[in-house]
Amino acid sequence: MNTTDILRRLEKKEITVEEAEQLLQNGEEKQELEYANIDYEREERTGVPEVIYCAGKTAGQVRGIVQNMREHGQKHILGTRCSREKYEAAREVCPELEYDEMSQIMVYQPEPFPLNRGKILVACAGTSDLPVAREAAQTARFLGNEVEEVCDVGVAGIHRLFARLDIIESASVIVAVAGMEGALASVIGGLTDKPVIAVPTSVGYGANLGGMTALLAMLNSCASGTSVVNIDNGFGAGYMAHSINCLTGKREEDK
Amino acid sequence: MNTTDILRRLEKKEITVEEAEQLLQNGEEKQELEYANIDYEREERTGVPEVIYCAGKTAGQVRGIVQNMREHGQKHILGTRCSREKYEAAREVCPELEYDEMSQIMVYQPEPFPLNRGKILVACAGTSDLPVAREAAQTARFLGNEVEEVCDVGVAGIHRLFARLDIIESASVIVAVAGMEGALASVIGGLTDKPVIAVPTSVGYGANLGGMTALLAMLNSCASGTSVVNIDNGFGAGYMAHSINCLTGKREEDK
Amino acid sequence: MNTTDILRRLEKKEITVEEAEQLLQNGEEKQELEYANIDYEREERTGVPEVIYCAGKTAGQVRGIVQNMREHGQKHILGTRCSREKYEAAREVCPELEYDEMSQIMVYQPEPFPLNRGKILVACAGTSDLPVAREAAQTARFLGNEVEEVCDVGVAGIHRLFARLDIIESASVIVAVAGMEGALASVIGGLTDKPVIAVPTSVGYGANLGGMTALLAMLNSCASGTSVVNIDNGFGAGYMAHSINCLTGKREEDK
Amino acid sequence: MNTTDILRRLEKKEITVEEAEQLLQNGEEKQELEYANIDYEREERTGVPEVIYCAGKTAGQVRGIVQNMREHGQKHILGTRCSREKYEAAREVCPELEYDEMSQIMVYQPEPFPLNRGKILVACAGTSDLPVAREAAQTARFLGNEVEEVCDVGVAGIHRLFARLDIIESASVIVAVAGMEGALASVIGGLTDKPVIAVPTSVGYGANLGGMTALLAMLNSCASGTSVVNIDNGFGAGYMAHSINCLTGKREEDK
Amino acid sequence: MNTTDILRRLEKKEITVEEAEQLLQNGEEKQELEYANIDYEREERTGVPEVIYCAGKTAGQVRGIVQNMREHGQKHILGTRCSREKYEAAREVCPELEYDEMSQIMVYQPEPFPLNRGKILVACAGTSDLPVAREAAQTARFLGNEVEEVCDVGVAGIHRLFARLDIIESASVIVAVAGMEGALASVIGGLTDKPVIAVPTSVGYGANLGGMTALLAMLNSCASGTSVVNIDNGFGAGYMAHSINCLTGKREEDK
Amino acid sequence: MNTTDILRRLEKKEITVEEAEQLLQNGEEKQELEYANIDYEREERTGVPEVIYCAGKTAGQVRGIVQNMREHGQKHILGTRCSREKYEAAREVCPELEYDEMSQIMVYQPEPFPLNRGKILVACAGTSDLPVAREAAQTARFLGNEVEEVCDVGVAGIHRLFARLDIIESASVIVAVAGMEGALASVIGGLTDKPVIAVPTSVGYGANLGGMTALLAMLNSCASGTSVVNIDNGFGAGYMAHSINCLTGKREEDK
Amino acid sequence: MNTTDILRRLEKKEITVEEAEQLLQNGEEKQELEYANIDYEREERTGVPEVIYCAGKTAGQVRGIVQNMREHGQKHILGTRCSREKYEAAREVCPELEYDEMSQIMVYQPEPFPLNRGKILVACAGTSDLPVAREAAQTARFLGNEVEEVCDVGVAGIHRLFARLDIIESASVIVAVAGMEGALASVIGGLTDKPVIAVPTSVGYGANLGGMTALLAMLNSCASGTSVVNIDNGFGAGYMAHSINCLTGKREEDK
Amino acid sequence: MNTTDILRRLEKKEITVEEAEQLLQNGEEKQELEYANIDYEREERTGVPEVIYCAGKTAGQVRGIVQNMREHGQKHILGTRCSREKYEAAREVCPELEYDEMSQIMVYQPEPFPLNRGKILVACAGTSDLPVAREAAQTARFLGNEVEEVCDVGVAGIHRLFARLDIIESASVIVAVAGMEGALASVIGGLTDKPVIAVPTSVGYGANLGGMTALLAMLNSCASGTSVVNIDNGFGAGYMAHSINCLTGKREEDK
Repeated sequence: MNTTDILRRLEKKEITVEEAEQLLQNGEEKQELEYANIDYEREERTGVPEVIYCAGKTAGQVRGIVQNMREHGQKHILGTRCSREKYEAAREVCPELEYDEMSQIMVYQPEPFPLNRGKILVACAGTSDLPVAREAAQTARFLGNEVEEVCDVGVAGIHRLFARLDIIESASVIVAVAGMEGALASVIGGLTDKPVIAVPTSVGYGANLGGMTALLAMLNSCASGTSVVNIDNGFGAGYMAHSINCLTGKREEDK
Repeated sequence: MNTTDILRRLEKKEITVEEAEQLLQNGEEKQELEYANIDYEREERTGVPEVIYCAGKTAGQVRGIVQNMREHGQKHILGTRCSREKYEAAREVCPELEYDEMSQIMVYQPEPFPLNRGKILVACAGTSDLPVAREAAQTARFLGNEVEEVCDVGVAGIHRLFARLDIIESASVIVAVAGMEGALASVIGGLTDKPVIAVPTSVGYGANLGGMTALLAMLNSCASGTSVVNIDNGFGAGYMAHSINCLTGKREEDK
Repeated sequence: MNTTDILRRLEKKEITVEEAEQLLQNGEEKQELEYANIDYEREERTGVPEVIYCAGKTAGQVRGIVQNMREHGQKHILGTRCSREKYEAAREVCPELEYDEMSQIMVYQPEPFPLNRGKILVACAGTSDLPVAREAAQTARFLGNEVEEVCDVGVAGIHRLFARLDIIESASVIVAVAGMEGALASVIGGLTDKPVIAVPTSVGYGANLGGMTALLAMLNSCASGTSVVNIDNGFGAGYMAHSINCLTGKREEDK
Repeated sequence: MNTTDILRRLEKKEITVEEAEQLLQNGEEKQELEYANIDYEREERTGVPEVIYCAGKTAGQVRGIVQNMREHGQKHILGTRCSREKYEAAREVCPELEYDEMSQIMVYQPEPFPLNRGKILVACAGTSDLPVAREAAQTARFLGNEVEEVCDVGVAGIHRLFARLDIIESASVIVAVAGMEGALASVIGGLTDKPVIAVPTSVGYGANLGGMTALLAMLNSCASGTSVVNIDNGFGAGYMAHSINCLTGKREEDK
Repeated sequence: MNTTDILRRLEKKEITVEEAEQLLQNGEEKQELEYANIDYEREERTGVPEVIYCAGKTAGQVRGIVQNMREHGQKHILGTRCSREKYEAAREVCPELEYDEMSQIMVYQPEPFPLNRGKILVACAGTSDLPVAREAAQTARFLGNEVEEVCDVGVAGIHRLFARLDIIESASVIVAVAGMEGALASVIGGLTDKPVIAVPTSVGYGANLGGMTALLAMLNSCASGTSVVNIDNGFGAGYMAHSINCLTGKREEDK
Repeated sequence: MNTTDILRRLEKKEITVEEAEQLLQNGEEKQELEYANIDYEREERTGVPEVIYCAGKTAGQVRGIVQNMREHGQKHILGTRCSREKYEAAREVCPELEYDEMSQIMVYQPEPFPLNRGKILVACAGTSDLPVAREAAQTARFLGNEVEEVCDVGVAGIHRLFARLDIIESASVIVAVAGMEGALASVIGGLTDKPVIAVPTSVGYGANLGGMTALLAMLNSCASGTSVVNIDNGFGAGYMAHSINCLTGKREEDK
Repeated sequence: MNTTDILRRLEKKEITVEEAEQLLQNGEEKQELEYANIDYEREERTGVPEVIYCAGKTAGQVRGIVQNMREHGQKHILGTRCSREKYEAAREVCPELEYDEMSQIMVYQPEPFPLNRGKILVACAGTSDLPVAREAAQTARFLGNEVEEVCDVGVAGIHRLFARLDIIESASVIVAVAGMEGALASVIGGLTDKPVIAVPTSVGYGANLGGMTALLAMLNSCASGTSVVNIDNGFGAGYMAHSINCLTGKREEDK
Repeated sequence: MNTTDILRRLEKKEITVEEAEQLLQNGEEKQELEYANIDYEREERTGVPEVIYCAGKTAGQVRGIVQNMREHGQKHILGTRCSREKYEAAREVCPELEYDEMSQIMVYQPEPFPLNRGKILVACAGTSDLPVAREAAQTARFLGNEVEEVCDVGVAGIHRLFARLDIIESASVIVAVAGMEGALASVIGGLTDKPVIAVPTSVGYGANLGGMTALLAMLNSCASGTSVVNIDNGFGAGYMAHSINCLTGKREEDK
């Protein structure tokens, strides 16, 4: 929407003066939308809208993309790796956006997606792995899943894990989040035949190599039925868990 | 079954002299079964029997394990990474074992597992990736899945892939097998929202680093809904695909 | 130009007092020009002037080199990896310098180079890859090429790429810029037989290893006719594209 | 061509008994052509036929593909990384195939492609790099290029390189092949503004890391106008050089 | 012992003609003992004799060193990484040498070392890890320790491990041997406060990187009280376990 | 302790208004104790309390955990990798906490653990390795060990090390801390048969690779009786040394 | 010198009140000299004093060490990797210290070492490599060598290097400093038989891997007579060049 | 020498029929001398003849190069990494060639080079490092140096090294050869100020990474005056030692 368009919409009273002002003010970013090619048919085609990965984008670009999506009538917006500053910028053009500090996720979703039948369990090994686990959980919730979170159940205190076996069994899919040596994925994988998505985190130091150690260990897990996503990729795990959980059908079908 | 047991069974005419001879001859391996701790309750507990990973074992050890499993009444045996020589050794104690050269898999399964409702698609990028793709397909078939295989649909001739979109859509889960730069997983992931299990292969040379390049590329896929198993781990992918496909229910339930 | 030289030029009224002051003020850097060995015959010899890679130099050194080049009558100046601060320093001695924020390139070029006949296409996979793509485009433009830019055509939405096939076909050389798993290069390489220069970017995280994953993937591309430059090396790609495009001849020859 | 087809062709006297026998004998491979998806329109579409990368294929598969290509009337066949044993297998079904031991290339090309105007120079650093250099040269020759080869011009005896400056200048594109520290590419790149395609080889030992050192060094070359292909990828370099050389037009256009 | 010495001993009837012949025959190796600098005071100084690491030595060198040690009156000989062929060579000059095929260890020890009070437990994750575990066990036994071995107690079947908690508690030191992702060390470390020596093995493939994955994972173990030795270094682990177990005192002191 | 509890305790005069205020003020953190699963039985079970690894936790989380431990009556608190800021936060709820700047360790221990009989020696190679060495020493002291520290005894001045041989001999266990090439561990290992725990540090630059070089070198030590912990893991080394030293028995038993 | 000593010296009028104050003020550092074990006999023993590597030390520690060395009468002090802030701290206790900003070296040397006969050449490839080259040059000058510096003679403009052949020939030892692909070392090595010490620098980006590429390339140099030091280790190169140059004898012997 | 030349020399009776036959028989290799560009002026220019690195060459190529060098009157031939088979091939055309099995070096040198004044010491850590050490020693001897070899003086038995201090002091240059953790270089470097050339070897296993560990450790040595060559590069070390030792002058000058 260029300047002329805005003014014409004002003339036709489609927008108020305040809205026109705001649109003109954001004009610079919108015109730069040459920097992004948003796929507006994605949701219709696949049931999932395009997701905004904010990490490599400026605050202005994030705001421009959100505005553009709203103008095209998108009803679901998910932004990941979104700093508070970028969230604030985006809220200027979409005040309903909500923000979760720990997972760095922003969400706009007036009408939630229908819920999948199965439940997803997100288990994390230590307190420091929480942000990644929360990113997985929030992503899966946004896409329409019931998610249970279990925290700080690392292998060093393996008896704590055994106290949660019922939760493991009640889930359709399990997301196992762990840094350091990532043994949690193997241990959970050995306890269940449910599909396990392992998420290595960059938690650790030295020979942890920024998470490569957990990643490699998870890929070499001696437990079958485990697959792995990129280091700290909570979003990818949540999305994959949702893809899998879709096979259980929608809850509304039950009615 | 120790020497005394064998002799007693002969005395009771439970076995013939030839069978006794064979058992005694294999005695050495059996006594060495201290080298393996077979989990006979696994199938009852999880629905899937323990699988024999033959690569790190001697022919004698493989034979010993198969014999031991038969003696314990196991009705499903799957051996992976099994050279023909090891298969021949195992067939001495279990003549019904079947062997697939390309996937290096041996199978004993008089009564197949019930079939899952959903279908699994195994797609591979090039001719050289076939052994790994076949390992995934054979594993999934053994566990009770209908599997379709599509071969040589690499990215360099991407139009070939587009001619197969209907097959992709008809599957519940997709296994994408590729070496070199592993781009097949990203391309398939971009075409569907079904869960995609990416299997990097060691096909390639030089900066392929024995498959690490394909592995890393797949982990960094810009397509959501993809997770990854170890290099050349066709078995793991087939198993994971089965775990996921179980969520679609059993076909026999339909009747 | 040492102090004596400056004073003599003032005496001969070749320069004004203000210019003399400025020259004396910059004297420290100029005397340090022992830190750089500028190749003033390069342009005559090869048709391309020496390029200033600003990243490893202080603002003072950049300014000193620009001043020195101007004093030697260089008519084309290109500075890459140039922060705004270094640009500001250089502009003190060469006010005509222009600056492009996104690509971090500064240019002084009163008389452009003659245009090559062929056209160069620069395609980038995502918004975050734009700075590198722009560096390639600006470099090629500076050296005398028509450049078309296509943005955010990553593999996850491969249909977007297919909508641009005509642009791919109309170019002589293609620069493909992508981070994460770098699959864009393979996909474009599979669609055309034009030479493709792949530029991996450091966009991504975790197992992306600072761009090494995209680099390795591009080197292993199963598509022929692709070669690769260093991570984030937009300049190198633009330069190589120009070298190749020179083989199409100059447009002025057409007249 | 299945068994019935062969017999019908014999009945119609289209083939002799001997030919029928040979075809039946090769039947097993042909039926397995499910292992390869040959792109017969490639040559029409792009001017270059599909190339057989023999390294990951069995002798039987190579023979089957060659036979299949001949049966589809392909007039140009290029097989790379082809051991003598695989060549012998392929010659059974295509006796006109020629073989070059050093480059491990087999070629069938009754009617050569039209020649490009420009010339390609392939320079290699040491005797041990020759096989890779020859692979690049033979590939480019097959595709329709005049190729000059210069051998053993490494950096340790840099004066030898300087004696060849005229050859460098007379070429349109230069392929620089080197192992160890790969400095040849930088030195040639510093001497010319022609596009240089650098090919690292695995020649060396210890901290050479199987060619990774030469690869990394070439990617970091301080000389502009250089791009790099995979380790030992003579084929890729020859193909890229041809892609570039095509921009010089065809010689037959000169007449 | 040079030729003259041998002949003089024959003259004095200290040796038989056959012994002289054998000594002369082995002369070449003995004179080459310039290739090794044996530390004959080591046992007196430290309580442990010098150990022969046979991997990098020729059969002749191994035989020469054994002969030389016998001639110097050494009463304890331990050779590791000793192929059967090297053992056979050494037995020519020391017929009492015993050999263990699985651990590739040869031992000569007419008078065993006094036993340490504490017991050492060697646990291994899978059948393929057995050779390394056995090397640790045999080394510790040679040095004077009671050793218990537990095999195939990997994490995939973690309940098997829990059935052995009493054995873990009865040991002074635990050696945990595992390949693949090496999670066994973390799990055992989480179950006990006894010192755990983790031994990564090269068992696995692909992203296992020849054992580096298990090594890195063990170094990052979230369980305290664990330290690590080199990949496949059963000898080092056995030796370290002995060093630690020495702190429990000698059993003979109890009497 | 939730808000109601606090108020009830105030009502019962169990706490003062000031204490209630403080408790309420810290309430937010306490309620978040869902972020940590503290193992309060650990000390009873294993003799060692759970340790707080502060690096990946916020100041608020550290304070919350300390408060929670105090409320559960834990008598020993050890926090590692604890910045002064986190210590200050924790001291608000546990004023008796002591802090050691160099090792970044905080300790609360009104009743020390009983002392082990043996002595632990911590030797470090250079001044820059001191913080890691101190972390090892403080950890071991906390757990009940007499610890001697020797500083700056690197290999470059090996005679300095030889002046300390008596100290080496008087210890039960030795912790050797070194960065750069980590040779100190080999040299000490060659001088003694006591168990040596090697701690690589990240001290160094360039090809030191953040401590990986020292780590790898220590793992390859040609001296037997050495095992290794993660880079900069002073805590792990101190803990392991304590585990080993426990085998010498408690000093109070001597009385 | 502890507090008592200072006061006694004041009492005996050996020092003034001001000096006493200063000494007391610095007391804290001096007492901490437990953090460093200075080798005061080093200069006598080897002709070279102990060098202070300042990078891993606090400003207080650097000052303490300098003070301690002065108090022990050391006549030569060299501090490397010394930030201005640390230099300022050290100058408080040794005002004669001189500082070179570019090389980050501080020197106290009232009586220079005798000069070696031979000359050392330090050549660097680009402006950004200057700090490392200067560190090498300053170190060698401090130790008693005539040093010539040649700057910005990289391989991309190889003719510039050829203009300096006489300087290369007039030196006894050559230090070649280069980042990126480090080809300078090979080129110089190919031009001379003088010993060449190659210093890789961390100058570059992307696949330069923090200098590892230049390091590996230099180690694989096809030119004989080259050896390599750590990345950015100008000090080590200067020291090694001095060690070698000592073999030419001292100039004062000529008189 | 082509066929015509051979026949003319026969006609002139310069050669016998047998010699002519042999020359013709070797003709194939000689004509292939396009595979090598021998630098016949090297010895005159630099004092050192071109060296044949045999590893990457066929037996025929090695023979061809030797023959060619002899025909050009070269008086010094050194071939490294020369298998016995290649040596046998070369001896056919140069029967005076001598061969050293351990170092895989072949030498033809009727008139030795004049001796340098200084002495070179080659020290190796273990028996398995001997072949590399011998390659260094033989290379230096060939080039005109007195060389002393000391074997098996590793750090694990450091007292053995101390018994050799006089030998270290009597040398001008020291070559230190070691695998595993390579600590020998640091220890020797700490004992002397003579230039030390460190040669890492690939001796070891697991985390030794084919010698990279020793290489990295040596590059990070805390001892000054040490520089490093490639893994297993005994030749390079011997050559560098000779370059350095040349600075001591020639012995014949003493007369």
